[in-house]
Amino acid sequence: MRIALRLIAPLALALTGSASPPAKPAPKPTAASIVDGAPASAWKDIPPQDLLVMKLAGDKSVIIQLNDRFSPVHVANIRAIARAGWWDGKAVYRVQDNWVAQWGDVTEKLPLPAAVRETKEDYWIPARAAGAITRLPSPDSYAKVTGFIDGWPVASDGKATWLTHCYASVGVARDLHPNAGSGAELYAVIGQPPRALDRNIVVAGRVIEGIATLAALPRGTGNMGFYGAEQAPLAILSARIMSDLPAADQVRFKMLDTASPSFAQLMKLAGHRDDDFYRTPAAGVDVCSVRPPIRRKD
Amino acid sequence: MRIALRLIAPLALALTGSASPPAKPAPKPTAASIVDGAPASAWKDIPPQDLLVMKLAGDKSVIIQLNDRFSPVHVANIRAIARAGWWDGKAVYRVQDNWVAQWGDVTEKLPLPAAVRETKEDYWIPARAAGAITRLPSPDSYAKVTGFIDGWPVASDGKATWLTHCYASVGVARDLHPNAGSGAELYAVIGQPPRALDRNIVVAGRVIEGIATLAALPRGTGNMGFYGAEQAPLAILSARIMSDLPAADQVRFKMLDTASPSFAQLMKLAGHRDDDFYRTPAAGVDVCSVRPPIRRKD
Repeated sequence: MRIALRLIAPLALALTGSASPPAKPAPKPTAASIVDGAPASAWKDIPPQDLLVMKLAGDKSVIIQLNDRFSPVHVANIRAIARAGWWDGKAVYRVQDNWVAQWGDVTEKLPLPAAVRETKEDYWIPARAAGAITRLPSPDSYAKVTGFIDGWPVASDGKATWLTHCYASVGVARDLHPNAGSGAELYAVIGQPPRALDRNIVVAGRVIEGIATLAALPRGTGNMGFYGAEQAPLAILSARIMSDLPAADQVRFKMLDTASPSFAQLMKLAGHRDDDFYRTPAAGVDVCSVRPPIRRKD
Repeated sequence: MRIALRLIAPLALALTGSASPPAKPAPKPTAASIVDGAPASAWKDIPPQDLLVMKLAGDKSVIIQLNDRFSPVHVANIRAIARAGWWDGKAVYRVQDNWVAQWGDVTEKLPLPAAVRETKEDYWIPARAAGAITRLPSPDSYAKVTGFIDGWPVASDGKATWLTHCYASVGVARDLHPNAGSGAELYAVIGQPPRALDRNIVVAGRVIEGIATLAALPRGTGNMGFYGAEQAPLAILSARIMSDLPAADQVRFKMLDTASPSFAQLMKLAGHRDDDFYRTPAAGVDVCSVRPPIRRKD
């Protein structure tokens, strides 16, 4: 096991009293130094119409980035549901440990806006339509190919490409039938990546702010983590598309371009952690463990 | 996408009014049916000296199974620390979202029992000493080989074998120096598997009951999830080895033998989910997503 030489070096230098100390080696890049050092050209603005802003009881909020390239029908549904104010007064009614926090109308009986439809689309798109994947070199347990498209983790079998279920991914809850999900009932992943859900549930987005609020909620005492009668579901005060909010309330975000050299550096670092703390690098990294950086714009 | 034929079949049968209905196909096995159907010989008792029982404020508790095959020095430390009552009155002082909940003495200044030592052992053991791995056929992003030994998820490069960091794994917190961890400061994983920590931090055990208590704690407001001055760390009332408790307070556990045919069935099912809900099976499964069943003994 390698000794942390750099930590010892300054002392050794002092003891030997060398008059011409060797040039200080350049510090190794860290995830923070790569992100902080990324040029402005490596960042892409997130369109405000792709952001769903949920205000929750207790002065909390959750911001979700939607992906209408991979999930156009469900994202259109989500926008229509938000614009109708349908989620206002609904709640987070299910929290299952190491699985999901889910919200919407627990009765599943309230009528949805007329434009909304259930569909079996959006589970994947043709690989050709998805475009070039910034490939992760590590093998994956679930799919032939993994990597990133336009800031999002994806997997592919060469014919189809789909968004992967990672921590904070937002999916469209459904019943048994594959076209039984509209987007009115959504969940966020709060545990290990449930990758077996890939292509079995539509990923419509990801939480980019506030996932900890959902992940720290009390677990439901009912079957599959549904809240029991004695529990208080977390109320949703409102859910709106960012671009529909008054200008003063809007917040802008940017994400690191996953096709940029900066992100390539991040991928490389994540696949070979070797620094003062990580002394035994792994042989690689999985697609959910390289999280494309997203920041608020100043 | 395949239609759920079995759901339609009973109706079709009623309509045709067949006098000799075909034999009902055997239902597909589920994880629950495999575990429930496992013979008594497939279960192994967990020795009570391998269980650390933490009583927490608010009438909560966490039970941790220790692994002294892979982490003998740190498990010996943990037993000595528990027997000295050292954790009593300490607290869970760090909760970082999608990372860990950590407990012990936040000042790291209180003296430890004399038997306790810090060491760089237990990061891995020689593959030959580890013994045969029940291999998972899927590729892994982090290591050449993954699978299970004696109920535990492991990885190997052929020379060394080590316990993997999965959800609920318990690791030995340390400072930069690789032998700076005693076991007095422990953490449990509460998010996606931080597999890059494998061989960089000693895995000494896993939470087998109560992980949700830790995972649902408020996240720390300080740097790296340490609790801020305005937050109340969760108090540890006591931490004891199960076999040291009064007989009436002891609880026994069993785990499914990962070398058993029942577990082989579970692995196969996990790597190819294909049922009324999962209609598009993944190409495999990762080692942290096949969780060896552990049950209380009646």
